[in-house]
Amino acid sequence: MHPQTLIKTKQAEKNINGISTQVVCSEFSNYIFVVLTQYGKIGTLVSVTPDSRTGDICTPMYTTKVLLGKDEALTHVCAKHLATFISQESGNRPVLVGLALKDSSIDSINSMKELIRSCQVW
Amino acid sequence: MHPQTLIKTKQAEKNINGISTQVVCSEFSNYIFVVLTQYGKIGTLVSVTPDSRTGDICTPMYTTKVLLGKDEALTHVCAKHLATFISQESGNRPVLVGLALKDSSIDSINSMKELIRSCQVW
Repeated sequence: MHPQTLIKTKQAEKNINGISTQVVCSEFSNYIFVVLTQYGKIGTLVSVTPDSRTGDICTPMYTTKVLLGKDEALTHVCAKHLATFISQESGNRPVLVGLALKDSSIDSINSMKELIRSCQVW
Repeated sequence: MHPQTLIKTKQAEKNINGISTQVVCSEFSNYIFVVLTQYGKIGTLVSVTPDSRTGDICTPMYTTKVLLGKDEALTHVCAKHLATFISQESGNRPVLVGLALKDSSIDSINSMKELIRSCQVW
């Protein structure tokens, strides 16, 4: 038996632009899993996968796919924006993002990135 | 601003039939999220949803759907078996299950149910 590395999980809560925002991050060997919620729900689940054919000399492209919930353009944009830095910092790992946001303004999204960074598990 | 209830997350590790097995459980308002892994991976992601039309006088039926990973019959069976008791105990909430199992024997699955129960977040 190979004892596995224990799965790292961190969570935090912060008031962002007047809205209670929670993040839960877990590190699995094949995915970084991040839920960002302002409703307590897991929200729309999006996989953000770096394109394996790029990435040698240039920044990789990312494919976003809604696995659960409403497939809206804004969700893809937010998920990609939030997951890209996680993927880059974790050696181009795919990221699974759950998003349940009341406020998707760019300022709030940037604050959320900081909140995610405070729960760095990668 | 309504402060949300903090998301409950628990995790545990146990040797089941010689294999290191980890579980991570999180309670979201619309889903119980459970990952059961013997590889450290998030594995095949399956939603297990009770049929809202039944459940008054009889045990509800469950719909399983593979959201991520290989869609195999055994995965549906294991996911349904593992998620049914969670859903029933949590007021018929849907369950999102990640499964990465080396051993899907019925004895091991039953031990995994006990391991999940030790991480009860619902």
